[in-house]
Amino acid sequence: MATINENFLKLKAGYLFGEIGRRIRSFKAKNPDAKIIGMGIGDVTQPLVPAVVEAMKSAVGEMSKADTFRGYDSGGVGYEFVREAINKNDFAARGVELQLDEIFLSDGAKCDTGNIGEIFGTDNIVAVSDPVYPAYVDTNVMAGRTGPAKDNGQYEGIVYMPCTPQNNFVPDLPEQPVDLIYLCFPNNPTGAVATGDQLKTWVDYARKNKAVILFDAAYEAFITEPDIPHSIYEIAGAKEVAIEFRSFSKTAGFTGVRCAFTVVPKQLKAYTKDGKAIDVNPIWHRRQTTKFNSVSYITQVGAAAVYTEKGKKQVKETIAIYLDNAKLVRDALTKLGYTVYGGVNSPYIWLKTPNEISSWQFFDILLTKAHLAVTPGAGFGKCGEGFVRLSALAKPDDVKEAMGRFAELQIGK
Amino acid sequence: MATINENFLKLKAGYLFGEIGRRIRSFKAKNPDAKIIGMGIGDVTQPLVPAVVEAMKSAVGEMSKADTFRGYDSGGVGYEFVREAINKNDFAARGVELQLDEIFLSDGAKCDTGNIGEIFGTDNIVAVSDPVYPAYVDTNVMAGRTGPAKDNGQYEGIVYMPCTPQNNFVPDLPEQPVDLIYLCFPNNPTGAVATGDQLKTWVDYARKNKAVILFDAAYEAFITEPDIPHSIYEIAGAKEVAIEFRSFSKTAGFTGVRCAFTVVPKQLKAYTKDGKAIDVNPIWHRRQTTKFNSVSYITQVGAAAVYTEKGKKQVKETIAIYLDNAKLVRDALTKLGYTVYGGVNSPYIWLKTPNEISSWQFFDILLTKAHLAVTPGAGFGKCGEGFVRLSALAKPDDVKEAMGRFAELQIGK
Repeated sequence: MATINENFLKLKAGYLFGEIGRRIRSFKAKNPDAKIIGMGIGDVTQPLVPAVVEAMKSAVGEMSKADTFRGYDSGGVGYEFVREAINKNDFAARGVELQLDEIFLSDGAKCDTGNIGEIFGTDNIVAVSDPVYPAYVDTNVMAGRTGPAKDNGQYEGIVYMPCTPQNNFVPDLPEQPVDLIYLCFPNNPTGAVATGDQLKTWVDYARKNKAVILFDAAYEAFITEPDIPHSIYEIAGAKEVAIEFRSFSKTAGFTGVRCAFTVVPKQLKAYTKDGKAIDVNPIWHRRQTTKFNSVSYITQVGAAAVYTEKGKKQVKETIAIYLDNAKLVRDALTKLGYTVYGGVNSPYIWLKTPNEISSWQFFDILLTKAHLAVTPGAGFGKCGEGFVRLSALAKPDDVKEAMGRFAELQIGK
Repeated sequence: MATINENFLKLKAGYLFGEIGRRIRSFKAKNPDAKIIGMGIGDVTQPLVPAVVEAMKSAVGEMSKADTFRGYDSGGVGYEFVREAINKNDFAARGVELQLDEIFLSDGAKCDTGNIGEIFGTDNIVAVSDPVYPAYVDTNVMAGRTGPAKDNGQYEGIVYMPCTPQNNFVPDLPEQPVDLIYLCFPNNPTGAVATGDQLKTWVDYARKNKAVILFDAAYEAFITEPDIPHSIYEIAGAKEVAIEFRSFSKTAGFTGVRCAFTVVPKQLKAYTKDGKAIDVNPIWHRRQTTKFNSVSYITQVGAAAVYTEKGKKQVKETIAIYLDNAKLVRDALTKLGYTVYGGVNSPYIWLKTPNEISSWQFFDILLTKAHLAVTPGAGFGKCGEGFVRLSALAKPDDVKEAMGRFAELQIGK
């Protein structure tokens, strides 16, 4: 008798964005003429930049001729030409020294932050921020690192670290010992960033407790303030305790192209149950070369083009469009009397709902009254209740129109 | 203290193709002028066909304009236009009725055959053919479904089903009960196919024992004999017990492009420990939409082009080149007195080593004397000892030259 992985049966309802999609489709079905503006799901709207487009077209051309055709990426972790460009521009340029075989190319940070759990024991205590990107939690439920869901939507066995205006949305160290710590800065969903000192607190904690930090820096390209670290490896000692996830999705508009990378330093250790230190880098290499088969050559050529002089300039211009959107949203909502966070080093604005109404109530009001799709904060966790997330990755004209609709909303603030 | 998944520590040496690569690099380093012909790794050499190239270039163009740009594939399992083309051409055309939400697009059959294990309990008894594609076994070791490796390279807890010339390389039903059964036809590495009656034996076994068949049909496009099933769903009742894996890698030269799909029928059940039947389709959907984020839009457009009239014709011509290679290898080696299997419905030729020498010995002879890279059968399992696998996916001129070198080999047959 083939048994199912019963951990999947613990999962609550659908994936957050599935539920949002269902509500939007249901509203659309009843109101086919409503022009809904999407500021919910963190999807990009600007096209690929010309440098990437040219590079990818040329790569398709290479694949059309026997002499230049490429089959399997034989190393299985990304061509050196991409990993060299990453190393030089994302790390060396910020004083972080990495070796090429510490960088693993993949088809997405969502995949990597999910798959990374496979190389760690199921007995690890997992700590996540609350609110949190749901996939961190769900993949740990699937892996059996949690008990069942409680009535408040949290899972037994996971340590939730509140992120609130009181701590500037940077979690305090947990009181109980934890082993795997998910940190995401610039944060999804709150748009918060962590300073070097705040990250150092975490690195020191991890070193002292032999914990591992899973650092999701998918929104790194949106950092505007000069003192904010872009990589956790800018913190001394971080290579001993941290894995970093990066993505081309938001940096270069690759949500529909699929490319990301993960850094697993050679200094990083995890432990057998009886305390023997094990190098994590070769274990992740084994996982990736056995359960994954690298990224499309065409995509890799496109990713490398992001690091050319033209590519860097063009990508910066695209990011500037989104950051302008974010500023517009912050300013407009603040002027209307709303309390907002984020949106300075991030495409996300974390909006306090007015009159203490719930996240999903405010979601429904915005959808039905303003035809505006946002993401209810409660979908990201207990501490997200009373907030909604607005994505500034929408088109500028849509963002402007959305702010006009906000101004007309009568919700008795 | 962060613990490692200690199951990874049970894995023996590197992944087979890693070891082969190391030996070839070492030989090359000492013999820089040797022109090594690769007939080892099952990688394709013919370029993408024009229909696919045109479609992909046009898709890159769409991604370059705001109006036609595509971000996330919101359903997360592949655009309907690809899944419809798959359904019509690969299944409906052969009398198999599937629903679109039974088809899940992905970035590779290697990924899917590895990831599929995540949705099943770790207590399942796994059965594999011997010889076997190593990733099936390694991913189950990682998941904790095995004990340690034995001296002969097999893992405790896995049921190995011998595939030998005596059973035409189609495994007999196992004597002990098994729960998850990996079958691969046309087979990698032996090139064998299973008849409808042989597959029916397995489907009946799985239905009787509530087992699940994981059917890898990645080489389906190479089937030439009219009576051989292309899909396991051509067998009555298979939808209740089988998951099928398909790939564009060998069909359309996508090894470097990455696209595949997996069929999980809605009738398929697995069970909780206390025997409650659970639908597998929504569990796989949850896994894929949580730990994966679909395939590049550009790749999907390319995959759909494989099913256009032009695409079908062009892809067939490419497959014919490889099948001609296979015939040439079969004929040449047979004429030289070797015993060969496969190569009729498959790009793989399974060659009995002469004089009872070992697989790795023959590998080394071919590498050092004929500058020919093949795959040692022993790398695929105990019953692969005494065989090597030759891939006919090489370029025709290389295959011809390789056969010439074989003719000149002095190994005292």
